[in-house]
Amino acid sequence: MTNSRNKVVLLAGGVGGAKIAEGLSQIIPDDQLIIYVNTGDDFQHFGLEISPDLDTVTYMMAGLSNPDTGWGRAEETWNALKTIELLDGPMWFNLGDKDLGNHLERTRLKNKGFKLSEVSQLFCEKYGIRQKILPMSDDQIQTMIHTVEFGFLSFQEYFVKQRCEPVIDGIKFRGIGKAQPVNGMVETIKSSKFVIIAPSNPWVSIDPIIAMKGVRSALKNKTIVAISPIIGGKPVKGPVCKMYRELGYEASALSVVKHYQGFLRGFILDHADSNFESEIIINGIIPYVTNTIMHDKNSRRKLAQETLDFCGRLNQ
Amino acid sequence: MTNSRNKVVLLAGGVGGAKIAEGLSQIIPDDQLIIYVNTGDDFQHFGLEISPDLDTVTYMMAGLSNPDTGWGRAEETWNALKTIELLDGPMWFNLGDKDLGNHLERTRLKNKGFKLSEVSQLFCEKYGIRQKILPMSDDQIQTMIHTVEFGFLSFQEYFVKQRCEPVIDGIKFRGIGKAQPVNGMVETIKSSKFVIIAPSNPWVSIDPIIAMKGVRSALKNKTIVAISPIIGGKPVKGPVCKMYRELGYEASALSVVKHYQGFLRGFILDHADSNFESEIIINGIIPYVTNTIMHDKNSRRKLAQETLDFCGRLNQ
Repeated sequence: MTNSRNKVVLLAGGVGGAKIAEGLSQIIPDDQLIIYVNTGDDFQHFGLEISPDLDTVTYMMAGLSNPDTGWGRAEETWNALKTIELLDGPMWFNLGDKDLGNHLERTRLKNKGFKLSEVSQLFCEKYGIRQKILPMSDDQIQTMIHTVEFGFLSFQEYFVKQRCEPVIDGIKFRGIGKAQPVNGMVETIKSSKFVIIAPSNPWVSIDPIIAMKGVRSALKNKTIVAISPIIGGKPVKGPVCKMYRELGYEASALSVVKHYQGFLRGFILDHADSNFESEIIINGIIPYVTNTIMHDKNSRRKLAQETLDFCGRLNQ
Repeated sequence: MTNSRNKVVLLAGGVGGAKIAEGLSQIIPDDQLIIYVNTGDDFQHFGLEISPDLDTVTYMMAGLSNPDTGWGRAEETWNALKTIELLDGPMWFNLGDKDLGNHLERTRLKNKGFKLSEVSQLFCEKYGIRQKILPMSDDQIQTMIHTVEFGFLSFQEYFVKQRCEPVIDGIKFRGIGKAQPVNGMVETIKSSKFVIIAPSNPWVSIDPIIAMKGVRSALKNKTIVAISPIIGGKPVKGPVCKMYRELGYEASALSVVKHYQGFLRGFILDHADSNFESEIIINGIIPYVTNTIMHDKNSRRKLAQETLDFCGRLNQ
């Protein structure tokens, strides 16, 4: 039996979440790592149930992910999409052939009545992943981006179809009021050793997880460390800086600290942002400065080890 | 404007229907060939809307079909199915990657409210097919095979999953009572010059078309010619002979003639079956003996030309 008090919980979005998850998996015993993944970006397309962040984390943990993009499968082919192109169908979402198999089987199982968390655990087993990768919820939560030009867009419409170009002035999580965190999540957080917040977009990857009933209060008094998704005022990936600016904040690692204020204990930031150290301390949070870029397996393990060591020191 | 009295109607199943359709398209002006395709084999799989016979005819007419199998796409890849295999999902139905694009776009359009006939016409346009390929109906008709061992199986379960192995003792077309032939079909048959019945399985490819309200009576007094799907007591393809035997009939070209008795005017049979000529005549139907195997583009055109010439003579 595993002592639940040894468990490390990771709250994760897509590529940043996948990388630190894989790093942690190199160090922590398999049954002590539990990854809760954002599902606010999930959507239906061509009748298929698509869970982009879950797949990104799963492919990375299975050693199947595309090392160039961070999402999708390595050595992917695009023949289904070529047919869709020929038929003048919608091309904005990248549906690789190998990736499609995942969407098809998930859709089949969900149509049979399986919960997303059951599908996710089954897929982990089949892909040979021994850690737990779970959706944040089995209920539908839809991240909606309010844009000045188009009003509300679903996350994928904003992120992929509109390439994050429209100016945003609000975000909401449709369905969050009624949604339950996935079975066991609140208890697992409460009894865990550490909670790590991946270098994911706070607005659209982490906020949906924390906004669910019972999660924020479960985080109180835990050892919680976040890794900055912003380095030197620039995003490691995606629209996080653009979002901070358009919503009226400075695009910086410091804004991420303030974002998580109220439950955060420690914050890992890049050398490029060491100038924020003293202000982070003033905000009551303990900073740790290191190299936060994860460009390969070694750098993923190194950042994961530093994160765990930092959590360990905070726990003393 | 096309004179509808010049129109040639083809009633078609899958591979046999596709081949004679392509042959006819080499000869008849584009706007004078109308192909009504069996949809009794259509089914949902992985949440996708799959129309096997429509796709087989469409791919052949578009010049995209696999010349070795007669169904599916040429130079197909199978990466989605490989993922499904890795996930231990159902592997019994062949889902090629290029083919999947067709299913995905059809599903998307049907979910948006398009009728199958609208999708089919749109796909023809996009694939550069100038002839009309239409589903027999926009309503759901499901060919159910009653087997001694398993009771009722859907056609694809019988045909693909069980590889036609179970002994059958009945066939029904679920939904046939309420289904309407596709818009314009009855009128088109009535005003057509000839109706050709493809060398398809009478039980499961042609019967569903003829069993729809109004079709059999529309066929009365037309010049109707069928091409035998049985040569020398053996099927050109599929379970047609096994079905005749298990349902209590001789598996022969003559049984096909009797199957269509009541509306058939002429019957095209292979040299191998010329011994049936006199008995076909006794049954009031005019036989035409030729080489009915269509192994390439030339033999498809040749059989189509002979069929049209034969129809012309019957019309005089």
